Order: sequence, then C-alpha cells, then structure tokens
Amino acid sequence: MRFALYYGPGACSFVPHVLLEAAGAEFEPRLLKLHKGEQREPEFLAINPNGQVPVLVDDGQAINQIVAICLHLDACFPEQAWLPTTGVARAQALSWLLWMNSVVHPTFTHIFMPGKFTSDEAAQQSIKAHNLALYGQHLQRLNDEIAQRGAPFWLGERLSPLDAYSLTLTRWGSMFGHDPVSFPALWALVQRTAALPAVARVIERERIRINMHAAT
Amino acid sequence: MRFALYYGPGACSFVPHVLLEAAGAEFEPRLLKLHKGEQREPEFLAINPNGQVPVLVDDGQAINQIVAICLHLDACFPEQAWLPTTGVARAQALSWLLWMNSVVHPTFTHIFMPGKFTSDEAAQQSIKAHNLALYGQHLQRLNDEIAQRGAPFWLGERLSPLDAYSLTLTRWGSMFGHDPVSFPALWALVQRTAALPAVARVIERERIRINMHAAT
Repeated sequence: MRFALYYGPGACSFVPHVLLEAAGAEFEPRLLKLHKGEQREPEFLAINPNGQVPVLVDDGQAINQIVAICLHLDACFPEQAWLPTTGVARAQALSWLLWMNSVVHPTFTHIFMPGKFTSDEAAQQSIKAHNLALYGQHLQRLNDEIAQRGAPFWLGERLSPLDAYSLTLTRWGSMFGHDPVSFPALWALVQRTAALPAVARVIERERIRINMHAAT
Repeated sequence: MRFALYYGPGACSFVPHVLLEAAGAEFEPRLLKLHKGEQREPEFLAINPNGQVPVLVDDGQAINQIVAICLHLDACFPEQAWLPTTGVARAQALSWLLWMNSVVHPTFTHIFMPGKFTSDEAAQQSIKAHNLALYGQHLQRLNDEIAQRGAPFWLGERLSPLDAYSLTLTRWGSMFGHDPVSFPALWALVQRTAALPAVARVIERERIRINMHAAT
C-alpha cells in the first residue's frame, strides 16, 4: 500500500486523514495514543523527531508537518480540486491554511499543553487563561470570514483542507468552553463538513465528538 | 510595478525579501518600523489584520503568511529552481520550511515577546528562560541536519528559502546569547548565504548585522 498516516484521534492529523478518505486513497491509518505518550517513544521519534502527528508515509518516505502533507496530497490527487491551482487565489487560500496552522493552532497548544512553554505552574495557569481569551477571538475571525464568503465551504461548493481544519479548531475550542453555537457561520460550515460521507467515516474511525461543549 | 513587500528589518520578511532580490524582480520594498508599532496602525491592519510582516502585494492583492508568500514567489519565478518541483522531495523540503515557521520561529517569539502569551511578568520571565533553552536545541538540530547534508546550501548548490530562513533564525538566536560560532555547519551555511550578492543587497537595505552575539 502506497500511503500510511500516523494520526491521533482529534489531533490536527484529522485534516490529512479527511483528505485521504475524500480522495478514496488506499492507506493504512496508524493510530498513536497521544495521551499515553506513544508519540514520544523511540520508534516514532525515528520517524518524526518532533514527536508530532500527522506523519504521512508515501512509498516508505515520511513527510512531517500538516501543511506540507496537505500540499503533497493536493499534488497527488489533483482531480479532487481541493485548492485553487494557480495565482493569487491559491496563495490566499494557503495563507488561511497557514494562519490556522501557525496562529490558531499554537494558541490552542498554550491552552492544552501550557507545560510546553514553562515548568512554572502559576505561569502555566496565566498562559492558559490568556490564550483561552485569544482563542475565542480567532474563532470569531474564522466565523466572520466564513460569513462574508457566504459559500457552503471555505472555497465554494467543494471540501478543502480549510474546512477540515476549521472543524478541528472548533472542536478544540469546544473542549475549553467556547460553545460552537455562538459562532453560527463557522458552526454551520463545520456541521456541513462533518456530514460529508468521507468526513463522517473519519469521525467514526477516530471516535470523536465534534461539539464537546454540548457533551459537558 | 507588480510587486511590493512590507518588511521589518531583521524580521522573517527577510526571506521573501531575499527571494524577490534573487529573482531580479522589480518590487517596492515598504519598510515598517516594528519597534514603533507601525504594524498595528489601522492602515496596515487593513492590509493584514494579524499585524504581521511579511505581506506581499501582487498586482494590488495582498498575500499574508511567509510560507504562502514563498510558495507564491516560487510559482512566479520557476526558473529560480528554489525548491524541488514535485514529489516527496518537494514535500520534505517544505516540511523543513514549515518546521522553521511553526516550531523554531514561535519559540523565538516566546523569547522576544513573552507578553504575547501572558500579562503576568513573572510568568513572562519563566517563559523566556524555558524557550531560550529550547531555541538552542532547535539551532543544534538545524546544524546537525545541515552537517549531514554536507552541501553548500540546504538543497544543494543553489539558494532556497531554507537558507534565508536559517540566516534569520541564527541571527535571532545571536541576539539572546546563542553564539552562532557554536553551530559550525549552520554558521558556515549562513555566512555563505550572506555572501551571495542578492542576499548582501537585502542585508544592506535592512541594515542588519548577522552575528549580534559578536556585537555585544
């Protein structure tokens, strides 16, 4: 089998997981139990020294970093038309993907794993509170951008990595008190995305709930 | 003129600044005085709501996020052959660029602007110390990877965005006590990069010193 994907349930590996499923690719999903620290075991560190998912294996060669993986899959499955193929339109779509990856995602890391940034426990609490407020602003910005675009998905009528990443980011917010329902355009897009058959299969394989706020 | 680039001297905007210069592109360099907060003025926030450089303007359209800009320039100037054009080789090169952008760069942000992550001053000091140690590990990893590759530049005989970003990250470390000389393979690559005529022109325009450690 050409492809394998190392993923953690509910981690940002959800995004390439969705792309592989949507493309109808044959691939081996390789589950890492992140809460048990399997990403820090020597066997996995030999594959990705960062100790992070996702890792895509293509014909035995490992590719790290979610955006690099999404771009690689985009190149492997051009018929999926996940992204504009050329010009400023492509650059601006990638810019949003990179914003999610380099701004919103790390804000969540400060909430979820403040111990990555300091060993001082009081400082960790302060970091967590500060970034929780910031995360709400990011979700609001996603919501406003989606509302302004007014399309079923980020880039129109079809799924893109932006939709899958939006679902993941919304779900993460919902774990820490940001009720998705208060971001109506974002939440509508997330629900539409979750209802796509390929996405629904990944949600089932990862055994995740989208709205963790409702679950509490 | 087709292109304009918003940059801050010594910021990561150095990377697309180098690419534009290396391509021999006509472009208008637009300096933002980051220490005076010009990136947070309404005029600039209308261009990039994140209040960050770089922003590339292509024919009146703004593109944010350094990696999106590098990929756009790569598409605009294919004859420069900055990156492998296809396959896993391209994905793995992008993976390093993304690692610099999403791991090493934010580690520096915690050192340089700990106030972005908490308003508590004691917590800021703790964050700064923790990330300073981490930053040294990242520079070591860059050094080891470059040493193992054993080529003049990251991807062989020619400049790539990885070389310009490595220069920037090395310079940042040197501002906070990480002597570049202690990372010999990295430092040799940075010096080779700085000596390229296009890079030297950008260094002169931005009026930056590469080794701030030696300057102290």
